[in-house]
This record gives sequence, C-alpha cells and structure tokens, in this order.
Amino acid sequence: MSKAASLPSEITSALPPGYTIRELQKTDKAEVLAVLTVLTTVGDITDAAWDERFEYISKHDDTYTILCIIDDKGKVCATGSLIVERKFIRNCGLVGHIEDIAVAKDQQGKKLGLRMINALDHIAEKAGCYKSILDCSESNRGFYEKCGFKFAGIEMAHYYNK
Amino acid sequence: MSKAASLPSEITSALPPGYTIRELQKTDKAEVLAVLTVLTTVGDITDAAWDERFEYISKHDDTYTILCIIDDKGKVCATGSLIVERKFIRNCGLVGHIEDIAVAKDQQGKKLGLRMINALDHIAEKAGCYKSILDCSESNRGFYEKCGFKFAGIEMAHYYNK
Repeated sequence: MSKAASLPSEITSALPPGYTIRELQKTDKAEVLAVLTVLTTVGDITDAAWDERFEYISKHDDTYTILCIIDDKGKVCATGSLIVERKFIRNCGLVGHIEDIAVAKDQQGKKLGLRMINALDHIAEKAGCYKSILDCSESNRGFYEKCGFKFAGIEMAHYYNK
Repeated sequence: MSKAASLPSEITSALPPGYTIRELQKTDKAEVLAVLTVLTTVGDITDAAWDERFEYISKHDDTYTILCIIDDKGKVCATGSLIVERKFIRNCGLVGHIEDIAVAKDQQGKKLGLRMINALDHIAEKAGCYKSILDCSESNRGFYEKCGFKFAGIEMAHYYNK
C-alpha cells in the first residue's frame, strides 16, 4: 500500500466521491481481470497462474507498480501499471513505462483514466525516473497531451506466432 | 553468456568476419558507455554506480538482457537491451521491450543494428514473449520494418524536471 498511500491529495481527492486508489491486491483477481478485458484478450488465468504472477510482481516492487481504482461499492473499476526500467544512459537513469491502462466500460467518462495516469506518473517521478513513456493510438494523443505527455516517436511491434 | 550463446548461427554468422556477439560484461564499462553516447548524454558514471547497476541487471537476468557486438579487434562496437515485462493480459503474457540500440559512429553501415535487433528479437521470442515492441523516430520505420516489425502506434513521453 505504501506507494499509493503516498499519492498527493490533488490526485486522490479528484476521484469521484467514495472512490479510492490503491495497489493491486491478491484478492482482486476476478475484478481486475474483468476490467482488463477492455484492452485485449485476457484468457482463462488459473488461480495458480495468477498467484505466481502476483507474487513475482509483489517481490519486484522496485520495478512493478499496479494500481487499482475502487468505486463507491468497493469494486475495481480501473487499473494501470508502471514498470521502472534501469538504464546506463542519462547517468544510470530510470525510465517509467506506463502500460495497460484500463477503465471498466460502465465507468468511463469519469476521468478515471486521467487520475490513473496522474498517479502512475507521480510514482514514476518519485521513484527517480527522468521520464515516463507510453504507447497509444494516434486517437488518444490529445488525452495524453492533457496528462502532460508529448509526442516522442512511433511504436513498432513484432508479434510472434505462438 | 548463456542467452547469447544460444543464438542461432543465422544471426552470429551474419556478423562481419571476426565480429562476435555476447552479453555485457562488467569490464565493458568504458567501451559500452562510449558506444551509448551516440544515443544521448551518458554522464560521468562512477565505477561504483556502474558496478551497482551492472549487479542489479545481472541479478535480474529474467528481466534484462544487454548484448554487445565485439569487433575484430576485441572492442565493443554496438549494444542493445531487452527488458521482459510480465503482464496479466494475454494469459499472463510476456512482452519484450527493445531499448537503447546503439552502434559506434565509425562502425555504422555494417548492419550491426540489424544483427542486434535480430538477436534481441530471438531472445525475446525464446523467453516466451508474445511480442516485442520498441519506440523509434518515423525516419527509422523502414529499418525496423526490414527487421520484421510493424507500425503499432505512437509513443508519448513525459520528461520530469530533474
């Protein structure tokens, strides 16, 4: 809970009344996986696979931060991840990679995506990153510009046949 | 050495005669940092800072792979990094992030960048990634298309005032 607990009130108090933000918990499995389906296929993740991945991420919390926004009924309604990469360039600099920002379909329009970005961005800066980056579609450019991000290049991907 | 040692001969034998590819070693400090200056500022990295970052990366070799191409005189002439991210989406999928591809100025034109991408791409696929991604400028799009990558979106960045 420590990283989310240190978020400034500008971010936490901007959430809708009764909504809170905290780090992912092991018991969030069903709810967070349901939210993630807005992005892509999630698949049938067994409890064992979930537990193993959750433990890995928890043990590597200097690299991974996964946040959840909880609605006024106690349900996970948005999630987002930050991965802190350690480089040699820029004086052994750190870079935050913001990934997998998802807001439940019936919770969109409440600026939860913006609050999630603000929170991950804050945690990345506090962790000592010199920048944070993310990939998105051209249609989301305006949204991320409102979050303080600027166009920096293009993303190329190589999908493997699995 | 294990990850580079398992590279197929199509990749290693495509290097110029006398050139080899291997994982970063602790003694590469001066040479690899010199190569990285083609990308951005590297800064005055102390031996202690280098050692600490090198040890971190070595200890987290399920996440980090840093390769170097060594020329026929035994000098580091190119480098590149792979960071394997662990997700929940796509059945607890893995994604490779290719970063910091650099070729020494006087070694350009020998397809070392292409060989480096091929090598990191191979390691990512072998590690079980469902895709690898990288960010670049629009002017490098054609190069990465030749490497098997496709345009996937745009990169947005937020630089912090440090």
